[in-house]
Amino acid sequence: MSKVQVGIIMGSNSDLPVMKQAAEVLEELGVSFEVTIVSAHRTPERMVTYANEARARGIKAIIAGAGGAAHLPGMVASMTSLPVIGVPVKSSNSIDGWDSVLSILQMPGGVPVATVALNGAKNAGILAAQMVGAFEADIAENLDKFKQAMKEKVLDAAAELEEKGYQAF
Amino acid sequence: MSKVQVGIIMGSNSDLPVMKQAAEVLEELGVSFEVTIVSAHRTPERMVTYANEARARGIKAIIAGAGGAAHLPGMVASMTSLPVIGVPVKSSNSIDGWDSVLSILQMPGGVPVATVALNGAKNAGILAAQMVGAFEADIAENLDKFKQAMKEKVLDAAAELEEKGYQAF
Amino acid sequence: MSKVQVGIIMGSNSDLPVMKQAAEVLEELGVSFEVTIVSAHRTPERMVTYANEARARGIKAIIAGAGGAAHLPGMVASMTSLPVIGVPVKSSNSIDGWDSVLSILQMPGGVPVATVALNGAKNAGILAAQMVGAFEADIAENLDKFKQAMKEKVLDAAAELEEKGYQAF
Amino acid sequence: MSKVQVGIIMGSNSDLPVMKQAAEVLEELGVSFEVTIVSAHRTPERMVTYANEARARGIKAIIAGAGGAAHLPGMVASMTSLPVIGVPVKSSNSIDGWDSVLSILQMPGGVPVATVALNGAKNAGILAAQMVGAFEADIAENLDKFKQAMKEKVLDAAAELEEKGYQAF
Amino acid sequence: MSKVQVGIIMGSNSDLPVMKQAAEVLEELGVSFEVTIVSAHRTPERMVTYANEARARGIKAIIAGAGGAAHLPGMVASMTSLPVIGVPVKSSNSIDGWDSVLSILQMPGGVPVATVALNGAKNAGILAAQMVGAFEADIAENLDKFKQAMKEKVLDAAAELEEKGYQAF
Amino acid sequence: MSKVQVGIIMGSNSDLPVMKQAAEVLEELGVSFEVTIVSAHRTPERMVTYANEARARGIKAIIAGAGGAAHLPGMVASMTSLPVIGVPVKSSNSIDGWDSVLSILQMPGGVPVATVALNGAKNAGILAAQMVGAFEADIAENLDKFKQAMKEKVLDAAAELEEKGYQAF
Amino acid sequence: MSKVQVGIIMGSNSDLPVMKQAAEVLEELGVSFEVTIVSAHRTPERMVTYANEARARGIKAIIAGAGGAAHLPGMVASMTSLPVIGVPVKSSNSIDGWDSVLSILQMPGGVPVATVALNGAKNAGILAAQMVGAFEADIAENLDKFKQAMKEKVLDAAAELEEKGYQAF
Amino acid sequence: MSKVQVGIIMGSNSDLPVMKQAAEVLEELGVSFEVTIVSAHRTPERMVTYANEARARGIKAIIAGAGGAAHLPGMVASMTSLPVIGVPVKSSNSIDGWDSVLSILQMPGGVPVATVALNGAKNAGILAAQMVGAFEADIAENLDKFKQAMKEKVLDAAAELEEKGYQAF
Repeated sequence: MSKVQVGIIMGSNSDLPVMKQAAEVLEELGVSFEVTIVSAHRTPERMVTYANEARARGIKAIIAGAGGAAHLPGMVASMTSLPVIGVPVKSSNSIDGWDSVLSILQMPGGVPVATVALNGAKNAGILAAQMVGAFEADIAENLDKFKQAMKEKVLDAAAELEEKGYQAF
Repeated sequence: MSKVQVGIIMGSNSDLPVMKQAAEVLEELGVSFEVTIVSAHRTPERMVTYANEARARGIKAIIAGAGGAAHLPGMVASMTSLPVIGVPVKSSNSIDGWDSVLSILQMPGGVPVATVALNGAKNAGILAAQMVGAFEADIAENLDKFKQAMKEKVLDAAAELEEKGYQAF
Repeated sequence: MSKVQVGIIMGSNSDLPVMKQAAEVLEELGVSFEVTIVSAHRTPERMVTYANEARARGIKAIIAGAGGAAHLPGMVASMTSLPVIGVPVKSSNSIDGWDSVLSILQMPGGVPVATVALNGAKNAGILAAQMVGAFEADIAENLDKFKQAMKEKVLDAAAELEEKGYQAF
Repeated sequence: MSKVQVGIIMGSNSDLPVMKQAAEVLEELGVSFEVTIVSAHRTPERMVTYANEARARGIKAIIAGAGGAAHLPGMVASMTSLPVIGVPVKSSNSIDGWDSVLSILQMPGGVPVATVALNGAKNAGILAAQMVGAFEADIAENLDKFKQAMKEKVLDAAAELEEKGYQAF
Repeated sequence: MSKVQVGIIMGSNSDLPVMKQAAEVLEELGVSFEVTIVSAHRTPERMVTYANEARARGIKAIIAGAGGAAHLPGMVASMTSLPVIGVPVKSSNSIDGWDSVLSILQMPGGVPVATVALNGAKNAGILAAQMVGAFEADIAENLDKFKQAMKEKVLDAAAELEEKGYQAF
Repeated sequence: MSKVQVGIIMGSNSDLPVMKQAAEVLEELGVSFEVTIVSAHRTPERMVTYANEARARGIKAIIAGAGGAAHLPGMVASMTSLPVIGVPVKSSNSIDGWDSVLSILQMPGGVPVATVALNGAKNAGILAAQMVGAFEADIAENLDKFKQAMKEKVLDAAAELEEKGYQAF
Repeated sequence: MSKVQVGIIMGSNSDLPVMKQAAEVLEELGVSFEVTIVSAHRTPERMVTYANEARARGIKAIIAGAGGAAHLPGMVASMTSLPVIGVPVKSSNSIDGWDSVLSILQMPGGVPVATVALNGAKNAGILAAQMVGAFEADIAENLDKFKQAMKEKVLDAAAELEEKGYQAF
Repeated sequence: MSKVQVGIIMGSNSDLPVMKQAAEVLEELGVSFEVTIVSAHRTPERMVTYANEARARGIKAIIAGAGGAAHLPGMVASMTSLPVIGVPVKSSNSIDGWDSVLSILQMPGGVPVATVALNGAKNAGILAAQMVGAFEADIAENLDKFKQAMKEKVLDAAAELEEKGYQAF
């Protein structure tokens, strides 16, 4: 992993089915990234090291996903000046996802976490790309194409619906 | 601070009006304690040190209070084998206290936090005393007296109500 | 059951699939325990007896699990000076688990229950072991090994992910 | 207190400002009653005695009010075959009243509590009167007059509004 | 249906799988009852007739079940002086049952509904029997036997668990 | 009251401070209206009459406000084919307004209520005007002017802020 | 599509299974309509055009469905003086539907959205028909027949239940 | 306003007391910014223009605050490839802030909003500075100093508490 712009971390490999969507969209948008597992509660020292070294390694944004009482995004944010994007993951014993949403979102003054929707790892990836794209024109172009493709997909769906009628669905 | 059995920590001095109730009840129950400020998000290294050294210093239980996305109790619990009691504090921009309750309660498997009620610092103190009292007979006796006093207060209130009638209140 | 350090009780045998996780982890951590059924609402006298006698029988902590309007942990706590750990169980007609969480957590001043996460019986077991471990060095050692094993499992998962790449998951 | 048809109990005298509304409406409806303090958590033996003896004392319904993790109504219901009416009281550290509502409402199969609205002690009184009124014609008549008076108050308010116009309010 | 003591009504036949539990337990407890469908929103005149005539027909309590914005229990209560027991039914598009719970529970002052747990039709039946049993000794006896049977079932489960050990479950 | 296009009703005169905002905006938009008090629970017959006669009296839309277990909008909707707009009012013992919101919003299939925001009586008035304005050109013009005025107010505020700077606020 | 009275739009074709129920009931009630896809977030310009032109095209009401942070109904409402009916759709990563309900319901003063129940597209269709029916007598007649048919269905279900007994269900 | 790196917008000047905290912290961190009012619902065209032109004007991140059904952050995000930070503002008729939190957080896949805590404008400002600081070394240095100052404030508070004792507070 030579030049890596975005670090994707998560508390457990059970978060991977959600969190890999961040990796996939970064791939699609041409942003370099790395993916690994860092647990706030089970490997606190590893978390400290990761957070402390990220900036010097050239990383521009960290995406951290966790479920339940999700402390990883906030704790990483407390130890770096890089922007940290938090992904609340709806884990098995979650109380409908409220626990991970609130544990990530409601950070105290001074230590922000950029929170996305429940299980919103894809949006976390896009957000990280937007942060890079604000300073690198080629990434911004990729984002514009991505937006255009989304738009066309909606227009195609609209055309298909108007042609076939709602009864066909 | 020679022999200290319970450590009371909190994220900010704005938590003191709530958290001092833990100190007061420990005082009343004859359990030795210390009180200080340790912020998970603003002084993460201090938190690591506190958690790592607590056991060797003779502490038997740690009471940690925090509001909002409250990470202090869970993070301390991740770094010690001592029981950690979490007090969700209802801070000013809290969403009705749900954020601190869920951030402390919903810990993942392997890293428990003994959570008490919202702003329940008094109960946190009693719980810590119960942990000590399970092994030290004099503290258990103090707890029994405390229970007895609570009971008598209710009986007195009942007697007063029955004597004066509900209209008097 | 000669020397028993932790009592595990629950309101119904339908709580066993959740509550047995407390037993399993206590087994693993070398803490002696007993498991039985005590219903606050269906066998209130049995509950009174259990709570009143626990301390004299040498028990150091009681783990009580219940669902819905879960009164068992709080009622037991009202009748003993031992620490009581409450496990909110998500039962079939529960309103997403909020009922059992709040019925156990929000105890009034004077009668604490050490509440763990929804269905968090495993953490209840660990917490009970931590209470014992604060006073018995061999249990503390077992807890340290347990923590170490959790850490290694995360490191292994991280190594596997970094080796195979996220696409493999 | 010779013949008493309804028993009103509550966990603390701090519940009196809410709970006295049950007494006042029973007074108005001509139903005999008593008011006292019985705490599930601070005087469990007193609660057992109260619940066990109520029926033999001629009581037809018990109104029990409590806040937070409100166990009084459900525990009393577990020890009598009389109908128990539960009043969730919004206490000071309540999480918006959800805790007392759910602790009283969500009773397990076999042990019902007739729950009324948050702080709904007046309605608890009326409900108890309805239970008596289903078997005693004079109480039923009082209830009909009560209903008629409510209706007339609304009609008067409507007439006043239509006469004065909404701008006057 | 000659002498009927309890009327069970519901808004739709889709509520029957839940509401029939009220009928079954009343059958078991020896209380006479009737079951029919009355919709507040689809047959408002039928509801008015039912509510107005119930008392004269000798009914002592009405059990009304409904889901979503559940208006049946409260509207019936507005038109009779009999006690009305409301059963919040968790219907398909319900927001986790909160809608039916709050629409039934939070009645304004003057018009109580005795609310039971979400889908708690069994408890509604028991509660109706308790209202009758407060005045009729044979029903009270049946309730005592019912309570005794519940207790024995718990004791049997406890004995089985202690004999076989938790590993067997 | 000769030609009245919109009927504004509410359960109690305590709802007037909120509900009069509907009247004020209808006045401003040139839509004729009437305001009165109709309680679903205290004057059910009056409600039936109002709902049944509204259409024949020339009314085009009914605005109904109520708090707590708010049944007025839904019950009126069950008895007329006119559109009914429901205003959830946050009353004193409301559970944060959730009760009135859900009691009005979650109507079963077949009987819609057009629900607006908590205490959103002003928006209820505008919505009623929009329903009339879809068929009457002069009301539509008034709505366009209203929209234009709102826009200008925002532009003025923006200009003032940009001129004075945020420090001035 | 010559004369179209109601426009049904939605953010994505994944909303069609819910939203087609609006089309079906409008068909049944004899109200002309069109169905298409307009995304607030993916095709904002298309949304602006749709909202701006709807009135001139003769449309009397717009039904807009969306899930999650549902902005379509409110944004369309900001750009037309026609009444806009919002349907909160429970999408896959929704937090139990609360997100779409609140994003549609809680519009600021000045810009109402007539919100119906979660997934309540059928009711949205009926509500649109009621708006038309307030001014067109034939649609009002269709609505009366629709109401009559619902009533008869309930009466049939009641008759069947009373005949067969509840045990048959 | 020559070179502006961060744009701060809000739906109404009533949001200024919250939103000005974003401006103040950006000032402190040496990041250039502008503040103005843009309403999604009252000035939709102004919003379109602002979102479309921001990038070309050199802006690197947009902070958008709004309350209730808060559509401003998400709609701006739909029209730019810049990162958009959303601040949920707790407005007067808000349902405890849940409406603005969910309307901003739960954006659909493809259009992220970086959400901060309820009323968390200060953190929005810091987050914007972090995005700039990831690419501009002087801003990163300012962030490090800011973090250091926070840490020292906690250490001072801890020292004061340990010196004076908790009784002094």
